[in-house]
Amino acid sequence: MRAARFYGKEDIRVEQIEEPECKQGQIKIKPAFVGICGTDLHEYIGGPNFAPLTPHPVTKETIPITFGHEFSGTILALGPDVKNFKVGQNVSIQPTIYDGTCYAWLSGWGGGLSDAVVVPANYALPLPDNIPLDIAALVEPLAVGWHAVSRSPLKSDSDVLILGGGPIGIAVIHALKARGCGKIIVSEISGSRQKFCKHFGADIVLDPRHDDVVAKVTEETGGNGVDIVFDCAGIAAGLKAACQSIKARGTVVNVAIWEKEILFQPNELVWKEGHYVACLGYVQQDFKDVIQAIASGAMKPGDMITSKVQLENVVEDGFKELIQNKEKHVKILVQI
Amino acid sequence: MRAARFYGKEDIRVEQIEEPECKQGQIKIKPAFVGICGTDLHEYIGGPNFAPLTPHPVTKETIPITFGHEFSGTILALGPDVKNFKVGQNVSIQPTIYDGTCYAWLSGWGGGLSDAVVVPANYALPLPDNIPLDIAALVEPLAVGWHAVSRSPLKSDSDVLILGGGPIGIAVIHALKARGCGKIIVSEISGSRQKFCKHFGADIVLDPRHDDVVAKVTEETGGNGVDIVFDCAGIAAGLKAACQSIKARGTVVNVAIWEKEILFQPNELVWKEGHYVACLGYVQQDFKDVIQAIASGAMKPGDMITSKVQLENVVEDGFKELIQNKEKHVKILVQI
Repeated sequence: MRAARFYGKEDIRVEQIEEPECKQGQIKIKPAFVGICGTDLHEYIGGPNFAPLTPHPVTKETIPITFGHEFSGTILALGPDVKNFKVGQNVSIQPTIYDGTCYAWLSGWGGGLSDAVVVPANYALPLPDNIPLDIAALVEPLAVGWHAVSRSPLKSDSDVLILGGGPIGIAVIHALKARGCGKIIVSEISGSRQKFCKHFGADIVLDPRHDDVVAKVTEETGGNGVDIVFDCAGIAAGLKAACQSIKARGTVVNVAIWEKEILFQPNELVWKEGHYVACLGYVQQDFKDVIQAIASGAMKPGDMITSKVQLENVVEDGFKELIQNKEKHVKILVQI
Repeated sequence: MRAARFYGKEDIRVEQIEEPECKQGQIKIKPAFVGICGTDLHEYIGGPNFAPLTPHPVTKETIPITFGHEFSGTILALGPDVKNFKVGQNVSIQPTIYDGTCYAWLSGWGGGLSDAVVVPANYALPLPDNIPLDIAALVEPLAVGWHAVSRSPLKSDSDVLILGGGPIGIAVIHALKARGCGKIIVSEISGSRQKFCKHFGADIVLDPRHDDVVAKVTEETGGNGVDIVFDCAGIAAGLKAACQSIKARGTVVNVAIWEKEILFQPNELVWKEGHYVACLGYVQQDFKDVIQAIASGAMKPGDMITSKVQLENVVEDGFKELIQNKEKHVKILVQI
């Protein structure tokens, strides 16, 4: 079968590999659509970072590994003891399961950029008939945003600032619009991303190169500051602005992974008795909630798909396109 | 009347000043016991920091100002419209009122280190008959610890790490013992403070110069980490240890004021989905709760008083003693 495998920096090869066997507790899936995410891109540009060079503690795999962890598909086969699923059923995949202390990376069990992948049955979520498979490939990034909102003290009138209008910032916008909130303000440098944020429901979009974000946020919230900041950027200047943009006892929710240590003055939070809440990924309930929100029409994420490319062209039309024209895209899907 | 007034660095003078007038909405108090706190000491050693050099926005006062904000006393007079109090009644003073956006410092309205002080009536809390006036002077620092615990997600079985065993760390211990929790672990360098912490109820006291605090905490909590860290130290190494000592989704409560920016890697909280909660001072409910806890016997803070000195000798026996023998003391009270 075909698989797009990561060998190291700037080295992804679409090649023939053996089809995996479906063992106890597993289901075999034919992937339909696979999103390329920022983590994939970082691995391609400067990795391996997360991809295991030495055998993965759980899966024993090392590179080359098959890429693709944001995906939907159709069940090809069930392991001998697997119930509650049937062959031909459409599913969305939750690639990581939070076990209370750490995350296991699906990468070790294969990936979506292939003609078939085997996953533990509890990683698959059944899809209602009214969610097409391309939209279902968006469930994973949307679950990241949904989880961040779930970890926040959101109320129906909460005013919100989002730092960074990339795919995760946009996932946060989708979750906020589906759940209801007050004003949504986004701080984003890229003009095309600013347009996407407006399109998906941001009320105000600021450009931190030209706008005084803290001053504008304060002005837009009657002098109080926002209830919640979602930091999807992960840069020191953003964290400072986040702390200065919340109202008394407001919350900064961190959705970013940070590249390095930063200079930070905790007093920025002290004077306001602020809260800082860290997020990592999602839990299964977030997947269920996102699927429900799409099925009910509360969330309409289709326009996040900015391109669909073929597996054979994943490097040229997927990875290289994202490097050259990152800002034009929210999500490129690979059609298997 | 006598007053100990702060003129600037290493310059406190006990001198005669005019007795204040008791106006609308105010009460006049004869202070009984006044605690010297770390903020006072910082002002004396290296100030003015908080003491206003230019007219205070609320009170219009500048230095020299009368020191002393941790105090108890007896009501001398009531402003014309003040009800719910009577002359001769004992009270404890809440020197700052949280108005939702900032704190107003009592310093502007005079201070406890004097024969009489006038405060807004809502800054005074009536004392039950069974709380003596020396113990009542401890209510303010105890309220800081109580507030920090109120801001934390404490449960009856929460294991706790406290960084710093000074007066505020000890106030946190008192609040935890009164409210109930799991294991109390303290990290403190000073041998005499370690003994105080043990005496007031710490189960385990670590010395961060010799002990691997994170490893010990992990070991003492069955490999999980503590539910809550109270950071009463405010140093970069402590914050890193705090983040590494909490269990998944645990909370670091900051009770410290930070001197400067520090290097911090937010990922320390990300991997565990940790929470960081900032505290500043207290609210009136904390004062009421502390008074109630002392009155009921749930809190027995008397041994925090390590010395009682006279107003005339406040510099020699109070400030200079705290500089020379800081670690021997939890709280020096000035008797008026």
